[in-house]
Amino acid sequence: MRVVRDIGEFGLIKRLTKLLPTSEKMGTVPSERDGTVPGFPADVLEGIGDDCAVLRIGGRVVLASCDLFIENVHFRRTTASPEDIGWKAAAAALSDIAAMGGTPLYCLVALACPAETELTAIDALYRGLAEAVAHAGAAVIGGDTTRSPEGIVLDISVIGEAREGRYLSRKGAQTGDVLAVTGHVGLSAAGLHAIERDADAPTLAQAHRRPKPRYPQGQWLCRQDNVHAMIDVSDGLIQDAGHLADAAQLGVDIDPRQLPVEPNLARYCEKNGLDTTDFMLTGGEDYELALAIAPEAHKEMAGAFLKECNTSLTAIATFTDQWPGVRAAGKEPPPGGYNHFA
Amino acid sequence: MRVVRDIGEFGLIKRLTKLLPTSEKMGTVPSERDGTVPGFPADVLEGIGDDCAVLRIGGRVVLASCDLFIENVHFRRTTASPEDIGWKAAAAALSDIAAMGGTPLYCLVALACPAETELTAIDALYRGLAEAVAHAGAAVIGGDTTRSPEGIVLDISVIGEAREGRYLSRKGAQTGDVLAVTGHVGLSAAGLHAIERDADAPTLAQAHRRPKPRYPQGQWLCRQDNVHAMIDVSDGLIQDAGHLADAAQLGVDIDPRQLPVEPNLARYCEKNGLDTTDFMLTGGEDYELALAIAPEAHKEMAGAFLKECNTSLTAIATFTDQWPGVRAAGKEPPPGGYNHFA
Repeated sequence: MRVVRDIGEFGLIKRLTKLLPTSEKMGTVPSERDGTVPGFPADVLEGIGDDCAVLRIGGRVVLASCDLFIENVHFRRTTASPEDIGWKAAAAALSDIAAMGGTPLYCLVALACPAETELTAIDALYRGLAEAVAHAGAAVIGGDTTRSPEGIVLDISVIGEAREGRYLSRKGAQTGDVLAVTGHVGLSAAGLHAIERDADAPTLAQAHRRPKPRYPQGQWLCRQDNVHAMIDVSDGLIQDAGHLADAAQLGVDIDPRQLPVEPNLARYCEKNGLDTTDFMLTGGEDYELALAIAPEAHKEMAGAFLKECNTSLTAIATFTDQWPGVRAAGKEPPPGGYNHFA
Repeated sequence: MRVVRDIGEFGLIKRLTKLLPTSEKMGTVPSERDGTVPGFPADVLEGIGDDCAVLRIGGRVVLASCDLFIENVHFRRTTASPEDIGWKAAAAALSDIAAMGGTPLYCLVALACPAETELTAIDALYRGLAEAVAHAGAAVIGGDTTRSPEGIVLDISVIGEAREGRYLSRKGAQTGDVLAVTGHVGLSAAGLHAIERDADAPTLAQAHRRPKPRYPQGQWLCRQDNVHAMIDVSDGLIQDAGHLADAAQLGVDIDPRQLPVEPNLARYCEKNGLDTTDFMLTGGEDYELALAIAPEAHKEMAGAFLKECNTSLTAIATFTDQWPGVRAAGKEPPPGGYNHFA
């Protein structure tokens, strides 16, 4: 009998999408864009398949997404404090708003835990979560609390807004566009490596424990006409660049030598005989942004971005129509790639 | 060390709400109601504590809620088929929109399961879920899929609309108001009782497996000026009537003799020497509606409701300011009442 592992996360999403009453299947009810009464479902601008769903509501453009966080899958209480678990869950969920250039507004927080869970741990988890929500400028407006037979389960739903109706989806990269990435990647994965080995690497550990999604950066990039597509780097650069390539049915070959190596990552890898490139290409949870930019615009944009957002913007590849999918230094990633059921 | 069980679900919600950046704490940014730019957080009309959060977005009034469903807490694969699990999770989540008189629009569906879960089971679960979403007239616009170490976890976030800006919250019952309930309660709990004993009670079993939230009924009631407060009966009539009483700081004493006994429930209880009243007062998951109605309006409203919605509306108590909380036949429920951590 075939099981979920056999088709993996992306096979499963494809399969389940076919079974659901998605907006595409619901026909063509007149939209509020046509000046008629409450528009639905023509007002679903983006459905399943992007970082957020995008809705038109009352002339405003609303982003919505949800993420599950499960003990011993997404976090371990042996290597993360409850505060850090709370921060990271909220930050990871809210990063989906940053990924589309939106402004976070509201969160719904659902928690399940065993009845024997210490209150001090739950308090601490919510304190960390509250800090990440406040850091995003958002508010918690509701949620759910219930029992789990084992382990902590969190689901965080986020609602944001695409100001002036502008948002960036994964789709839109064009042949010849530059693939660029904000800031530095690989820190979070190296941080986990250090935490698990009790190594002294506080900057990397902090990057793993308290990732800071790129809200203002995403909003600034979203206002630039020459940015064609965007995603947040949650599953690793290769994986997420692959989503940009796949959505555009293009190819992209990342040049790892172009990636800026963060000094703490360089030091940690040198000291421990590790390869910085591995962390930078496959390490997830940095919540940097990867984007497709018109080739003529990149240089000037990087300068303005550094000035406005105090963040680097580095070109690391060019999109091509000569072959499909993602490569790094000319090599294809292992078949199937990373998925949550592997 | 104090654990979650010691304070229960409602103690936990109260405690965690204090820790979160809720809209109340975020200050008084000008609202779009004042004619200024994107209003937030003054546009949170209802935050934590009702069936849904209520938001003002672009002149429209939006309802949002989320619910977790956890294997061996909310459902058992030994007594429910995957189709029924999917239907019921979606129906339970969408009922929160009905509870406020809203129109369901969109769902986000997050699923976690072990990698060894059979695909046929997941397909069936999504088929049931899809049916319930389609029954509500809503569409699935996104979600999440990930691994769990054990058991199926579902989180369903729902977004709906309060048409013409009208919605009913839990707050609002007035002294002298009638407490009324739609349709029949107790069927779902009796259905589970029958399923667990392999007893032949198909109508009750179906009520348990495929509850049908009261969407049109809720919308109709929401348009009546004489309805002051509403909730869905998800945790049992005593519990949910108690929420209406508590929100208004009033008391309400349910007269069980007024409750209409559904014929299948009557037959099942008679045959098995059981008390219909127990099922009707404490059985959850019927997703009927409980509401507070101006006393002079109830009779006429019940007639019109029966005609328009083909559903009964039965007065079962009167709200009083003489004492606080809920009673049934003059008796207070056990201290603490039902909660998910008991």
